[in-house]
Amino acid sequence: MSNLSQLNVQALQWSGHSLKVLDQRLLPDSIAYDDYQDAAGVTDAIASMRVRGAPAIGIAAAYGVVLSAMQHYPNADWQAAVEQDIKQLAASRPTAVNLFWALNKMQQQLVTPSANPIAALTQLAQKIHADDIAANHAMGERGADILGNAKAVLTHCNAGALATGGYGTALGVIRSAHKRGHLQHVYADETRPWLQGARLTVWELAQDGIPATLIADSAAAWLMKSGKIDWIVVGADRITANGDVANKIGTYSLAVLAKQHGVKVMVAAPSSTFDFSLETGDEIEIEERNPKELLADCYLTDGSLVSAWNPVFDVTPAELISAIVTERGIVIDPGKHGVRSLEAC
Amino acid sequence: MSNLSQLNVQALQWSGHSLKVLDQRLLPDSIAYDDYQDAAGVTDAIASMRVRGAPAIGIAAAYGVVLSAMQHYPNADWQAAVEQDIKQLAASRPTAVNLFWALNKMQQQLVTPSANPIAALTQLAQKIHADDIAANHAMGERGADILGNAKAVLTHCNAGALATGGYGTALGVIRSAHKRGHLQHVYADETRPWLQGARLTVWELAQDGIPATLIADSAAAWLMKSGKIDWIVVGADRITANGDVANKIGTYSLAVLAKQHGVKVMVAAPSSTFDFSLETGDEIEIEERNPKELLADCYLTDGSLVSAWNPVFDVTPAELISAIVTERGIVIDPGKHGVRSLEAC
Repeated sequence: MSNLSQLNVQALQWSGHSLKVLDQRLLPDSIAYDDYQDAAGVTDAIASMRVRGAPAIGIAAAYGVVLSAMQHYPNADWQAAVEQDIKQLAASRPTAVNLFWALNKMQQQLVTPSANPIAALTQLAQKIHADDIAANHAMGERGADILGNAKAVLTHCNAGALATGGYGTALGVIRSAHKRGHLQHVYADETRPWLQGARLTVWELAQDGIPATLIADSAAAWLMKSGKIDWIVVGADRITANGDVANKIGTYSLAVLAKQHGVKVMVAAPSSTFDFSLETGDEIEIEERNPKELLADCYLTDGSLVSAWNPVFDVTPAELISAIVTERGIVIDPGKHGVRSLEAC
Repeated sequence: MSNLSQLNVQALQWSGHSLKVLDQRLLPDSIAYDDYQDAAGVTDAIASMRVRGAPAIGIAAAYGVVLSAMQHYPNADWQAAVEQDIKQLAASRPTAVNLFWALNKMQQQLVTPSANPIAALTQLAQKIHADDIAANHAMGERGADILGNAKAVLTHCNAGALATGGYGTALGVIRSAHKRGHLQHVYADETRPWLQGARLTVWELAQDGIPATLIADSAAAWLMKSGKIDWIVVGADRITANGDVANKIGTYSLAVLAKQHGVKVMVAAPSSTFDFSLETGDEIEIEERNPKELLADCYLTDGSLVSAWNPVFDVTPAELISAIVTERGIVIDPGKHGVRSLEAC
């Protein structure tokens, strides 16, 4: 499969003995990679949001397990040491299920007898990585089919090549639709507090020659009222059996607003994002990050009357979603059907 | 009337021969005043958002007219020179009608024969200033009556002492309600792109001993879904005869979301904010500010594929507003009645 994206910068690069992680906190001002040689480093890269995006952190964690195995094999109890690292990696962030999905796959390989466990683990991590890219391309085509002749869309946060193995989920759909010639324009919102829209999404789109217009998060409703957008296209961090979607804080807001303005909502996510062990989104743990991501330093003192509430995900009920797109298939109106039809046989 | 606010920092201070303007762009990091001695300076202070907030810019403009008169009187054609300055002041920002209301009052005084026109203009500007503070206190009491036993509210942007002559419109209501002991907690959203909520509102509230929690703009819907807030309380930049309200971008979004979550919406604004010459909000000019307020420098080049859409106000239809509070009285459900009942006899 050819890579349709022109994006030469990748979030993750496996060197064979280390994982190079693009520090996305520095974009678009500078392009700098950190080189990690153990699982603790990868854990920190995820927790500190050098790498972010549900599929990308799953892939990074998989390589983290490989690095752990390289460090500990063939010491006595090497598998126990790797399992300890897996626990650390799993504790890096709570909401995106792709992380646990990838670690679970690696864990299964870890306990599978193999003449060359390093090679087997490496091969699996690379397969997880390659499968994600392939899934994104498949979703891109399916999503573009659904967008049809839509002329303009709004996307939230960054669900692009930087958030995945490559190409992107929501931005993969946008790339494919733009390539077909129908989609003329993409709006991106800033996505406070980390500004993934302002720093990552418009940068990715520009790299691919797709015109993008940035708006403040709070301007989305006014944009919808203007009639300028047909769809909102986003990724996901976890999708439960009933079709509820955890995604970057603000997604729920956009979905409620979209319903009121006749704008449709598409969620594009690989099957690794589905958590069929949870019936509804109420069961998803929502990460709350440090208030300092919002607050001026002067308020970060004991006894300060000013605090911050900083949930970084929210849950959009299935009823507010028009279509969920995965590499396995699509579900139109998931609020009516749930998404168990996408569960692996 | 005693000033209930503990806030010792004022947006505007008239020295008798100059206007000291707090540079609100620097808060909360530093408290610095610029001293303006002519109308051109005041025009720049408004356009550059050193002073902002609909009532405050009206008051600043009134003092700007006094400074113009001080500069030109008693030269030949001094009134024509002042009228030229009034035109400049009127062109500083387009949306808040208080600016034009105050300039119109000053213009009327300007053409009224007077033995001491400087004294007459100064007296009028000071009356506009004092009346605004008195109006805020009256609104605070009326608004607190309506809030009743509400325990928590969300406010947007800054409609506080800094945005007015003193005490505040929305924050005046919040101050009065907190003083009564019912209101326990105030949520403020950041209010991109200028972050008036993060920089000004939580700072003002802390000065008054009112606990405040900052949230990202996009977290407001998730907050409402949690059931933690009873009301949204905001100010206004212009209210038309049918009760439509122009206010900081994001207000419309909050009002739509509030309706979907059973949260009520209060708009507090002095009568100087009403524009009975316009029937509906569709007729209000919405200011769009420089894209550089949103975009990284690397996109501010010719031929950049990345642009920004930066409307800094939006219009909330009267139907989405539960109560409009002014110093003259209140209108419950303005969507049913419009607000002509508040028009001066």
